[in-house]
Formats: sequence, C-alpha cells, structure tokens
Amino acid sequence: MIRAVLTATILAALIAPRMSGAAEPCIPCHTEKTPAAVAQWQGSAHAKAGIGCEKCHGSDHDKIVRGEAKVGMKVCAPCHKKAYEEHRLSRHGMGLHSGWGCTRGLPDRKKDECRFCHQPGDEMPRSDVQCARFLKQSPEMGEIGCNYCHSVEDACDSCHSKHMTDLKIVRDPNSCAKCHMGPDHPQWEMWQTSLHGTLNVSAGAKAGPDCQTCHMPKGTHNVSIGITMNSGGVPYPAAKAEPARKEMVNICSACHAPAFAKRELERGDLVRSQSLAILKEAEHIIWDLNDRGLLDPMPENRPQHPLSGPRLVTDSQMLYEDTSHIERLFFKMKKYDYARTVKGAYHQNPSYTHWYGNAELKMDLVDIKSEASRLKERGQKGAGVKPQAGAEDELKALKNKFDRGALSAEEYAKEKGKVLEQMK
Amino acid sequence: MIRAVLTATILAALIAPRMSGAAEPCIPCHTEKTPAAVAQWQGSAHAKAGIGCEKCHGSDHDKIVRGEAKVGMKVCAPCHKKAYEEHRLSRHGMGLHSGWGCTRGLPDRKKDECRFCHQPGDEMPRSDVQCARFLKQSPEMGEIGCNYCHSVEDACDSCHSKHMTDLKIVRDPNSCAKCHMGPDHPQWEMWQTSLHGTLNVSAGAKAGPDCQTCHMPKGTHNVSIGITMNSGGVPYPAAKAEPARKEMVNICSACHAPAFAKRELERGDLVRSQSLAILKEAEHIIWDLNDRGLLDPMPENRPQHPLSGPRLVTDSQMLYEDTSHIERLFFKMKKYDYARTVKGAYHQNPSYTHWYGNAELKMDLVDIKSEASRLKERGQKGAGVKPQAGAEDELKALKNKFDRGALSAEEYAKEKGKVLEQMK
Amino acid sequence: MIRAVLTATILAALIAPRMSGAAEPCIPCHTEKTPAAVAQWQGSAHAKAGIGCEKCHGSDHDKIVRGEAKVGMKVCAPCHKKAYEEHRLSRHGMGLHSGWGCTRGLPDRKKDECRFCHQPGDEMPRSDVQCARFLKQSPEMGEIGCNYCHSVEDACDSCHSKHMTDLKIVRDPNSCAKCHMGPDHPQWEMWQTSLHGTLNVSAGAKAGPDCQTCHMPKGTHNVSIGITMNSGGVPYPAAKAEPARKEMVNICSACHAPAFAKRELERGDLVRSQSLAILKEAEHIIWDLNDRGLLDPMPENRPQHPLSGPRLVTDSQMLYEDTSHIERLFFKMKKYDYARTVKGAYHQNPSYTHWYGNAELKMDLVDIKSEASRLKERGQKGAGVKPQAGAEDELKALKNKFDRGALSAEEYAKEKGKVLEQMK
Repeated sequence: MIRAVLTATILAALIAPRMSGAAEPCIPCHTEKTPAAVAQWQGSAHAKAGIGCEKCHGSDHDKIVRGEAKVGMKVCAPCHKKAYEEHRLSRHGMGLHSGWGCTRGLPDRKKDECRFCHQPGDEMPRSDVQCARFLKQSPEMGEIGCNYCHSVEDACDSCHSKHMTDLKIVRDPNSCAKCHMGPDHPQWEMWQTSLHGTLNVSAGAKAGPDCQTCHMPKGTHNVSIGITMNSGGVPYPAAKAEPARKEMVNICSACHAPAFAKRELERGDLVRSQSLAILKEAEHIIWDLNDRGLLDPMPENRPQHPLSGPRLVTDSQMLYEDTSHIERLFFKMKKYDYARTVKGAYHQNPSYTHWYGNAELKMDLVDIKSEASRLKERGQKGAGVKPQAGAEDELKALKNKFDRGALSAEEYAKEKGKVLEQMK
Repeated sequence: MIRAVLTATILAALIAPRMSGAAEPCIPCHTEKTPAAVAQWQGSAHAKAGIGCEKCHGSDHDKIVRGEAKVGMKVCAPCHKKAYEEHRLSRHGMGLHSGWGCTRGLPDRKKDECRFCHQPGDEMPRSDVQCARFLKQSPEMGEIGCNYCHSVEDACDSCHSKHMTDLKIVRDPNSCAKCHMGPDHPQWEMWQTSLHGTLNVSAGAKAGPDCQTCHMPKGTHNVSIGITMNSGGVPYPAAKAEPARKEMVNICSACHAPAFAKRELERGDLVRSQSLAILKEAEHIIWDLNDRGLLDPMPENRPQHPLSGPRLVTDSQMLYEDTSHIERLFFKMKKYDYARTVKGAYHQNPSYTHWYGNAELKMDLVDIKSEASRLKERGQKGAGVKPQAGAEDELKALKNKFDRGALSAEEYAKEKGKVLEQMK
Repeated sequence: MIRAVLTATILAALIAPRMSGAAEPCIPCHTEKTPAAVAQWQGSAHAKAGIGCEKCHGSDHDKIVRGEAKVGMKVCAPCHKKAYEEHRLSRHGMGLHSGWGCTRGLPDRKKDECRFCHQPGDEMPRSDVQCARFLKQSPEMGEIGCNYCHSVEDACDSCHSKHMTDLKIVRDPNSCAKCHMGPDHPQWEMWQTSLHGTLNVSAGAKAGPDCQTCHMPKGTHNVSIGITMNSGGVPYPAAKAEPARKEMVNICSACHAPAFAKRELERGDLVRSQSLAILKEAEHIIWDLNDRGLLDPMPENRPQHPLSGPRLVTDSQMLYEDTSHIERLFFKMKKYDYARTVKGAYHQNPSYTHWYGNAELKMDLVDIKSEASRLKERGQKGAGVKPQAGAEDELKALKNKFDRGALSAEEYAKEKGKVLEQMK
C-alpha cells in the first residue's frame, strides 16, 4: 500500500501544481461553511501531496449539493489500489449496500442468480439488492440503522474519517467499535474485557493485541482472512475452512505456539457446533408448530414477509417484526445469543461465551419449549385455532413436513403408516 | 462565569484574611477525619482565594453532623451567578428533587397547580413534589437509586466534585456518565461508540466532540439548549421546537455545513415520530384490554397507584411494579426502547438506533400482541375473569372508551349503533 | 511480600548461576515457537533475578507438552509466601476449581462433609468438586466459560500475566475486568460509571479509587476483607459480618469520615435485605406451584438435576437450563437482578442499583406472578396436568410444604384443619 500511495503522491506532485489551501477555490467559502472539514483536510497527507477538493468531489457543485457526488470506494481506488483490492476480497467489500442476508442466505443459489447482486461483468455487488429486514425499515431507519455501518461496503470513509488521513485513527480499535458492537455482534465489548484487550490497555499493543493486530495483519484490508464461518455463523465447508484456519494460526503464532493457538481455535469450533445444535433444536420446534398450524399468528394471518410472502422464515432473512412471540424468541437466540457464544469463544471472553451467550441460548430454549407447550394445549382446546388433537391433524402436519423437505418420502410413508395404524 | 468568579475572588480577598490551610479551624481535626476532602480543598481554587470551610458549610458543627447543612445550589449561587442562572433555565435545574414525572406529566395541568411544585414567588421547585416511581421506593432505594442523580437539580456537587475545583473533571465526558447511562438513557454508551465519540478518543476533542462540546457550548450551564422534546421524548410544539432547533444547528455548524446538520437532525425527528407511532399502537392495545376488563390483574385488584389510585396509568407516571405482564412490557418499550431509538438517532449511533432501540421496540410489540391474544382468549373462556364475548361486554367496553375520552360522543354513538345493529 | 521476593531473589542469586536469556536452554527454540512469551520473560523481574524456564515449568518437556505441568499456585508459593497465604484466606483462593456453589451452598453442611472439597489435612479445596451448572456444560464450555475465571482459585497467572512481572498490569483495574463483569456481577461496569470510577479516569487514582484501592489495600492478596456476605449475596451472621464491616469502614476512612462511610454501607445493607425479601416472595411462589404439581414441566418430567435428581432446586445450585419458564425468570432475578442491585448499592452506582437492579427485580416479580396465574388457571382446567381445584389437592400441597419443612407441624395441623373445616 505504501508503494501505491507513494506512486500516487509523486504523480500528483508532477501533474498538478502544488496547492496550498489558499490556492484551492473551495476553501474561502468552506472555511466558513464546513470549518472542521477544511481544517482536517489542511492537516492531511492529501493536502501535503496537493490532492485538493475537486480530485475526490468533482467540480459539479450542484451535483455535490444534491448529494449525487458521494465519494464512494471507486473514487479512492485509482490511488489506493492495494487497499481497494484487499477490501474487495474481504467480507467488508463483498456485501450489499443495505445489509447482509440477501441471496447469499437463500438456499440453492444458482450461478445465474449472480445478476441479482451484480451488474454483468462487475464483481462489486449492486447497491440495491434486497434484504428483508432492510425492506421493512422506514427510509430514515434504513439510513441510520442499516447504512451507517453497511456503507463500509462501498465507502472508505466508513473507517477512514472523511478529511483526516492520520492513520492513528483507523489503527485505533475504537474505529472498529462504531459498528462491531451491540447485541448482535459485540466484538468490541468482548475484546475490551478479554485478556487480549485488558493487556492492550494496561501494557500496550505489544502485550495485548487489538482488532487490527489479528484481523488486519501487516495492514491488509482483507479483514476476513482466517475466518472459518459466514457472517451468520454457519461453518464453511472444510475446503474453504482449512486454509483459512491455517492463516489464522499463522497470525496467532506471532505470539503463541502454533499448537496452542490451534487448540484454542478448535475449542471455539466445538463451542460453535454445540451451540448450533441448540439453535437447531429450537428451530425444529417452531417448524413443527408451523406444520400443525399452531403459531399465533400463523404466517398467513400477518403482514407478508417481503421476500418470501406468507411463509415461515427462520433463515438469515428472518424478521424480528410482524412475527409471533416464539419466533421473536428464536430471533434473539439466533442473532444475539448464538453470535455472542461463538464470537465470545473465538475472542477468549469467558463472560460473553458463557453468560451473555450460552446461558441465554439455553434460557431462551427453556422459554421456547414453554411457549410451545402453551401453543399445543391451546390448539387442543381449539382456542380460536382449529383443533389439532386428532389423527387427521397429525396426517396434515406430516404432509407439511414432507412438502417442505423435512421428511424424506420414506420417512413420510413410515410416519404416516404409524398414524394410520393407531387410527384402526 | 469567569467574571463572577473573579468578582467573588476579589471580594473574598478583601473581606476575609487570606487563609492558609493551617489558619482554617476545621483543618487539624479533618485532616485526620476526612483526609481526602482536606487535601482536595487545599489544592483547590477555593483555598487559593481564601474560601474556607465555613463559607460553604456554615459554622454550626452540630447541624453539619446531623446532615442539615447540605451545600445546596443556593450556597454556591451568590458567587457563581451566571452558572446558577443558566442551570435554572435548563432541564437540570427545573426538575424535582426526587425524580422526573410529577405534575408535568399529568394531563390538563392548570395554572394554579404551580403551587404543587413551587413555593409562592419561588421559581425553583419544592423538593418534596411527588413522583409515583419514587413514592414506591424504600427510603434507601430512593436515596441511592433516585436522588444520587436527581440531586443535580439542587446541588452543584452532583457534577463538580465536592472539594476539588479543577474544571478538567467536569469537562471530562466521564463526569456526565454517572447519570446519563443505563437502560433508560444510555447517552454515555451511545456517544462512546458513535463517530463523534470514537474520534474523540483516537484523535482528540477537536476531531470528535464530547457531551460538553454540543450540550454546554462556550461553557454554558443551560444544558437544554437545542433540545426539541421533553424528558419523556414527547416533541415540543413548533413554537418551542423551532428556535431550539436553530440553536442546535448553530452548534453543529462549528464543524458541519448547516444544511447537513439540519438534515441529520430532521432524520432524527422522523425516527422519533415513527417510533412514537409504534408506542401508541401498543398503548392502544393495553387500554382496550383495560376497557374490556381483561388485564391480569386489573388495576382494581392490585396495590393502588400512589397518585392515581385503582386506575390504569401508562403516562410518565407509569410504574414498573405492582402491574401486569403486558404493562411491564409496555414500560420497557416506553422507557427503554423508545428512548434508545430516539436518542440513538440524534446521537448518530447505528446500533442504539436500530438494534438496541427500533428492533427491541418492534419485538416488544410482537410480545404485547401475543399476550393480548392470550388475554382475550382467556376472557372468552372465562378463566377466572368474567366472560367478554357478548355484545353486552362490547357495549361496556365502548362506554369505558367514551368515559376516558378515547371516543368522542359522535364516535361512541356510531360504534354503539353498530353493536346494537348486530344484536338484532 | 517485598521481603519474600527479595529473599527469593537473593537465594536464587546465590544458588543458581546468574543466567542471561542466552544461557537458558529453552530460549533458542522458543524464541521462534513462542516469541511473545520469551520476550516478556526477558523483560521480567524473573529474568533479572535469574529465575529461568525450568524453575516454574520443570524440566520434563513431554509433560509440559501434554499439558500436565501447569504452573499452579503451589509453584509460585515457595517464593511468594505472603501473597499465597493472603490469597488462600480470600474468596479467590477458597473456591473450587470449576465454579462456586458446591457444598457451601447446600443447607445443613456437616463437618465431615469437608472431605467433599478437601483432601484430608489440606486446607486447599480439591479441584474436582462438583458444581451443578459446571456439570451441565460440555468440556469446552467448561474450559472457557467456567475455568477461564475460576482458575484464579489455583493459578496466579489468572491475574498476573504469564511471563511479564510488571505490577502495573495487575494494579490496573482492567485486570479485574476480565472476570468481574457481565450480567451476574458487573462490578467493572458499575465502578466505571460510579463517582469513584469517573473521578479515577478524569482526576487520577488519588481522587477516585479503583478496585485495588478498596479491595487490596496495601497490596494484600486477601481480596475478601471487609465483605459481609457470601458470593451468593447472603449476609454473614453478625459475628462474621461485624469485624468485616469494621475493616471496610477503616479502608473507606483513608478518604471519608468513618461515620459517613458506615452510613453509606448500612444503606447498602438495607437495600440488600429489601431485595432479598423480593427474591423470597418469588421463590415462595415457585415452591407453592411445585407443591401443587403445577410447574410446566415438573422436575420429574425433565432431565434430572445433576446433584439433586428429580427435585426442584432454587438454591445456589440452581440451573438455567432444563427447567421451566417461571424458574428461568427466577434464575435471572436471583443471579442477575439481585446481584446488580446489591453490588450496585455498595459500589454507589445509581443506575445499577435502581434500573439494572431493583427495577428488573420488580419487573421479573410481575412476570413471575403473571406466569403463576397462568399456571394455576391451567391446572384448574386440567390442561395436561391433573386438576388442582379441589380440597384434596390443597391437602396434598400442604403435605408437600410440611415435608419440605416450609410448614412446622403446628402450622401444618392448623392449615389442614382449615381445609377440612371448609370440606364439611
């Protein structure tokens, strides 16, 4: 990257006349209008290298004012090639403009579905790809609640502050905290109270690594190296996971014995698979209730899912609104508890792994089972829903399971047989 | 303020003989009894200006020991006039001794109710004004749980540490954190992980503003300038909101283009009105259950509300105890989720606006609807409550709605007509 | 401790030839394998005093590789006698290898039960003592979720980083944060936003004390001095509590007037007893449901408790998994809400005492009462459970209460009499 920057700098010095702030036509007016931006640019490496306002913002002032001249990633790319290419390879760069999920989360994705996300011939995803949770938001909530973070996918200034070029800012783990925090992925919080994070604060970055040490080694912008699962926490197949794991063990080996690092990460893998099993148990309960028509309300009696219509959705496109109490509990399990358990284990944080993660996961399973018990009794008593106690209903539920692929033809025949046997 | 302090300093220097710690009669004994207080005072601007113990604490030692010589705001006011006047104008100074809420939250407040809060001729509120949540506390919980923060309304040392005068302490955003944190208003937490807060940590106060930069510009003690809603998040009428908004845009303009600042704040306004609508939907569900006699327990079958008696309360005097499950859910929505959404949006924190705020708001609405569905089915089956399925009950519920003003006379007649029609 | 270290240092200097890193046989290989460990040791007081690898790790490399040469507390003890003895006296040293709870939490503990935790003649507890919550964990979750923190009971390097001897690290309150945080005991979080913690950050350790100031005065390793309750928050009997309180008031007196400190701590005591009463009310509701066979599921219809079998457990061995919704609510009350209220009060944090503590405690009681109401109605309607409405069931419940000691013989007779009277 240093080379790319230097090249750009030299080029700029040759081509453009070296500008002082005063020579820049925007400065007089903007010193008054946006004083911080001007002061920050004036202290920046850009100013020193003669990179002025127009170079990034263009010269069409009306377009800028209308908000149509956003300084997206492609504006920075020509000068910052290496960073741009690394970023494209990473999860930061591969995503969608407005939220994760999308086709990546859909089952049976086909090659020709690429067009769903990409312009033909363009590896960068389109910015208007759909995400169910984003589609349910008001434009305002979408802007602040979704795009403030997911802008990282198309804008360098998500991390690099707009006009300052001081790398101290982006090398501070604080700059990651803006997005990597909160109930769904509290990496910031769990690092802070981990051995790594506490040593970082008390004894410096050499003793305790920060986000950048492990996830951006040697300043790479491919923040996804060494990661062995997708953003929903689903493990990669071995062919993809194994080389990634080797990369991560290599990173850990800057401080630790490789065997120790491997063991610690493999413990994380086991915590992950155990937690996935708890999640699956809960998911199975909910689908069974759906097969029996016992959710309250059923998907057909509530606002439709924006991508899947009047059907139950528990995959990465799951909603937290216009749903039922038991699905709401499952949303928390999946998006909050599971993420905290797994990320807590990989980040070596006991409290996030156990109390904020595993304990919540198991307590939510208790609540899901209790609610399922209530919904089944409710069904039996016909409280506003059609009675479900009879063999006919059991047969209907089995057919639903078969139709959605939860039972094979063989298993379906066998289970149906059992019910018919009992009917005699 | 500087002028006021200087005047006081000069006055003190003229009137009192300049004291060293040794000349102060309390010092010998208190060096042993309260060593920190003595050391802090000795290093303070007060000591340097000859302001000794008696000036603030008085000379009646017995009274001090009995805790009857509290150094309230009026003790500081004569020397710190400007700060005192600004504080009085702010929300910090206008409140009650023991909690917000009170008559300000009651509907139809009349002019002559001023006496409820104020001594005649005194703009400062009385300290014994009632707050329902405070009234439910034990004296001990009231002291630590309520008054530790709400003491700001009558005591400068809530923020200014008791004997140190070093302004570094109160200029540190940390000093605001003691109260402006937690589930009901996590301003501290949301600032820390906002762009403003993270830049403040990594690049200093010039790059990233802190609490004081925006809420106490030029050192004012009127912390409420630029705020456009009351402490419960209810928007001010335009006549009050518009000048406040201008003040805030002016503050933002120290760094940002005014048009940008305005747009960002208006996005917050829209998030606020959208969130209020979600809140209202939930509130309506609960009042409807109350009209139908379906809350479990009903207000008349549980300890009475300390201000409103055996009636449902969902306004700012709402309780979180001695209530029903569905009201408890609403309390969380109103006090926690709504506050986090709205304050998160104004503080530009994506995770607080969306995950901690909006998502919780919508998930709680899911749970409230589920619980309402259960309570209605329970009513229909007469499970310990009187049956509610018949037209007679519908008429009763309509009358309740009319009585509490939720239906106009016209609407009431129309709805009643519909039910009577169906009865034929 | 300084004397002990010096003695050890002198001894080492006399006995062993003074080693440089180069003279140490492990160094060449481990500079490559575990570079951080080597670098940290090289900068340590141990290296300066000639304490090499073998002194702590032994010389059996195979054993080390197999993980059988852990550097437990007894390896450090011979040189660090004072610290070791103080640690043994403290809660940090008295515990079990894998979690609190255990026999200490069981009622009616007998002298000869000591063998349950201790080898005969050894005051240190055995490392394999049972804890119900630990027994329910996978080995991996037990390692990271339990032992990462509870290793403090047997390993100095829980707090002291493994190869660095710089005391700055352990004197930083950050080093306590690794374990003393999270939903069950957020001492780190509540200190940070307390007056003590905020002053510490803005004005230094002299103005605002940290963990070590109050809990490790004069560098003692007995972190339990001045504590008046057990780790579950149950108050000690007066004979044990009174001298402890005197110790704590003495610690506070380094800054505060003793009378003030005493008053503040006594307020904490009152908050504690009031909160215990709320907890007891909830516990009583759950036991009553159990007596009436109304829990869903009942303990006999779910995986058995690993220590108590098919019985309801609400003491310190209570589980958060394989339980019922109402017990799960009680677990949160007991382990999270109660702990936050009480520790919040003693640490002078208004938000943890009131909002995170007391308000949650009372809201969970609302939910427990609501769920109890639902379970009772469910029982009356025989929804999958045996009907409980009749006098016979009341007699059965009374017998259960008598059998578990909740009613004395006299009370039992009296209550039984009342029911029989009604039957006539």
